[in-house]
Amino acid sequence: MSKKAYEARLPDVRAALVRMQIELKSAKFPVILVIGGVEASGKGDVVNILNGWLDPRGFETFAFHEPTDEERERPAMWRYWRTLPPNGRMAIYAGGWHADAMGQDPRTSRELAQFDAMLRRISWFEGQLAASGALIVKVWLRLSKSAQRARLQEIESDPRTAWRISPEDWKSQRDYDRLARLAERMRRATHQPGAPWYLIDAEDPRSRNLAVADVLLSRFRIHMRAKGRAAAALGGAHKRVVPLRPAGLRRLLSLSLDSKLSQASYEKKRDKWLGRLNKVVRAAGQERRSVVWVFEGWDAAGKGGAIRRIADAIDARDFRVIPVAKPTDEEKAHHYLWRFWRHVPRAGLITIYDRSWYGRVLVERLEGFAAEAEWKRAYRELNEFELELAEHGVIVLKFWLHVSKDEQLRRFRDREATLYKRHKMNAEDWRNRRKWASYEIAVGDMIALTSTRHAPWHLVAANNKRHARLEIIKVSCRQIETALGL
Amino acid sequence: MSKKAYEARLPDVRAALVRMQIELKSAKFPVILVIGGVEASGKGDVVNILNGWLDPRGFETFAFHEPTDEERERPAMWRYWRTLPPNGRMAIYAGGWHADAMGQDPRTSRELAQFDAMLRRISWFEGQLAASGALIVKVWLRLSKSAQRARLQEIESDPRTAWRISPEDWKSQRDYDRLARLAERMRRATHQPGAPWYLIDAEDPRSRNLAVADVLLSRFRIHMRAKGRAAAALGGAHKRVVPLRPAGLRRLLSLSLDSKLSQASYEKKRDKWLGRLNKVVRAAGQERRSVVWVFEGWDAAGKGGAIRRIADAIDARDFRVIPVAKPTDEEKAHHYLWRFWRHVPRAGLITIYDRSWYGRVLVERLEGFAAEAEWKRAYRELNEFELELAEHGVIVLKFWLHVSKDEQLRRFRDREATLYKRHKMNAEDWRNRRKWASYEIAVGDMIALTSTRHAPWHLVAANNKRHARLEIIKVSCRQIETALGL
Repeated sequence: MSKKAYEARLPDVRAALVRMQIELKSAKFPVILVIGGVEASGKGDVVNILNGWLDPRGFETFAFHEPTDEERERPAMWRYWRTLPPNGRMAIYAGGWHADAMGQDPRTSRELAQFDAMLRRISWFEGQLAASGALIVKVWLRLSKSAQRARLQEIESDPRTAWRISPEDWKSQRDYDRLARLAERMRRATHQPGAPWYLIDAEDPRSRNLAVADVLLSRFRIHMRAKGRAAAALGGAHKRVVPLRPAGLRRLLSLSLDSKLSQASYEKKRDKWLGRLNKVVRAAGQERRSVVWVFEGWDAAGKGGAIRRIADAIDARDFRVIPVAKPTDEEKAHHYLWRFWRHVPRAGLITIYDRSWYGRVLVERLEGFAAEAEWKRAYRELNEFELELAEHGVIVLKFWLHVSKDEQLRRFRDREATLYKRHKMNAEDWRNRRKWASYEIAVGDMIALTSTRHAPWHLVAANNKRHARLEIIKVSCRQIETALGL
Repeated sequence: MSKKAYEARLPDVRAALVRMQIELKSAKFPVILVIGGVEASGKGDVVNILNGWLDPRGFETFAFHEPTDEERERPAMWRYWRTLPPNGRMAIYAGGWHADAMGQDPRTSRELAQFDAMLRRISWFEGQLAASGALIVKVWLRLSKSAQRARLQEIESDPRTAWRISPEDWKSQRDYDRLARLAERMRRATHQPGAPWYLIDAEDPRSRNLAVADVLLSRFRIHMRAKGRAAAALGGAHKRVVPLRPAGLRRLLSLSLDSKLSQASYEKKRDKWLGRLNKVVRAAGQERRSVVWVFEGWDAAGKGGAIRRIADAIDARDFRVIPVAKPTDEEKAHHYLWRFWRHVPRAGLITIYDRSWYGRVLVERLEGFAAEAEWKRAYRELNEFELELAEHGVIVLKFWLHVSKDEQLRRFRDREATLYKRHKMNAEDWRNRRKWASYEIAVGDMIALTSTRHAPWHLVAANNKRHARLEIIKVSCRQIETALGL
């Protein structure tokens, strides 16, 4: 492409990009632009060119260096989650998850299996972001082997740019064919609706630059139109709540709630079990295994009290309680799991979630905060999230605290009558209570659909608080012991 | 204190704490509770007791482990800044900055000097938080040497708690007197209005627990009342803008703006200097020195263009541009510097702030977003912030891009006439322009009061964009070279 032809197109392209950015500002989705490609294909140049064309206020460029210890101590995808742009903004990834996967440079069949596992993870990561509305544009800059050699020589011969070329670059030229096969494997595994790869010929830098901009612009236009249609299609009247998987509801309803436990017997057993819990939690910490507790349950089922008992057995320096209430601005502008990823503990530490990501299939399902397609999709998303934790070695303990409707009423009345408990009650509690039957169905589905081998649900009969607390401590001990192979 | 007397007081204390939390929720300040004390004085117990008394949804407990590499690679106070609670919430520090300072265990006079420097830093940290309205409550739990010995023995003899005692604890018993002197030195250096220490006798755990709660409650009540008075006293009519330090304004006005530089001459020099900048930036990176660029200037003075030129010389993976616009929810709920601390780069990396913390003494001063006492105090706060960066080895480059009022008008008109520049203009730009004379005064004060040895202001004549860009590149090179001793 001649310089003249290129420059003739620039004003239009730049104006279109700027219009895109202005439209994006008020859009309810983020743009994720991934720029991959072979060495010397000009990934950095494209990023810098885009930097020049776009308003820098609306986007950010990310590249990934060696993982930091804070990153290494968390599941592999945590470092990417933390950089994801909020709705209305764009992030350009010069390198990123794909580059990191390619950087593993797998050779043995074992390494290739790990590589494929990482690709599966990436594909899931992009797939769920796309499903939640993110616009993901991935371009792969191609360069033939001889063109790459010529480009490397050209950069190296100019004293102003020679520093860019490292021995690594020449190595990738020698390994060109193997790396090309690997890149193809990567692209094939991560190519999907909502996150397709676009191959762009990078031999001519000018047409390369324009091609990247064109892909971005056309995908953006299509996405905006599709979004408009989706918003129009939403709306929908409130539907009757029907179980997806009735087995869960049956399991819930068959739980015997009225276990007895005297105060004296409780205190004796509790101290014994708290001592044991303390021991196993410390053992987990020594092995750098993290523990995540998830507490869900009816209002007034005793989540707070149970958390306090657990906390009694743990060094205050090792755990954090994350009360899950209304999300902040920044949280609302991200994928709904982002706010939970934020608090995933470092190796050997503990996060206790007081309510959790399960809000997606409970309150958000029932109150219509999530569309039907969204909460139905969420079961798998939650399972995958916990799988990522588990694969990293995090021990995930999930408790549903179950009380009868009568018992809840007694506790609500007690709260209203007790000065220092009164603040715990609000109109919402009574509102939720009126939807008891619907919640039962949603809880049943949750239990049936998200009780996995790596993160099983524990149903706790909680009409008797002592029994419930003891049960939680016992079950926690046992699950941690099993996870540690004790 | 007898168990009976203790239990008789509990309901009142708990009710008061809960009332406090409810009031706090809608208050415009955070509560920072620091719990320090000698070994075995029960810091952890107090934290756990408070955990039981308070609603866990309203606060978080922090303790600090070994700094992570992300923390080590930033100024010392960064790790504390990132944990600070937003308005309406409380954080309990079981350990924290004081404990970390004490953990240095200084012995030689050099170590003691470092210790004192850290204390000065802490005192400043707390002082500025207090000045911005935070309620800081610091308690120090005391225990005599013999009481400490008895407590250690008691904990060690109980099999359920014996694990808590390490050889370190017995060492601190042997070093009791020296550590007591050190702690006193620490408390004296960090005791100030707004952040006083409260000494609490920890020999009797029950009265210790109540004493901590009482201090917290009474400080909270006083703070709420003072806040109410301060809010009533604010208001105030808009005042005439008068220079604090006219030398700055004179310096600004004496800047000759119409430097000439032909396109050909510019391009030749630019390429030479960009190559040099690239080299020095890489040299800084190799020495793990970070660079922070701060761009301030009139609207349309060419900040964006200057940033792009700089970016041309730097590897895209090494820098981030932070456009500073309206703060987010989470940012608004913190000290005004928190949002800038968030983006302080890791060792060897670069952050370019497109507008910056100087908004405090420019737009916030002139628009009344900051009260007079606030923006007047800010000059020193900004200097101290930059000093913290500089002391950590960060190279701070500050540019004020200066254009004449006529030149700005030309550019505004050009922007409005050019399709892809139009989005850059809004009503605010014209509004700010009408306040040109006031801004000149504020800029003059800023230059006079925040041009320091560690972070000098560079005034750039920017009527000629080529001249301005080249000047910025040159000055950046030279300042980085000087900092590196090249």
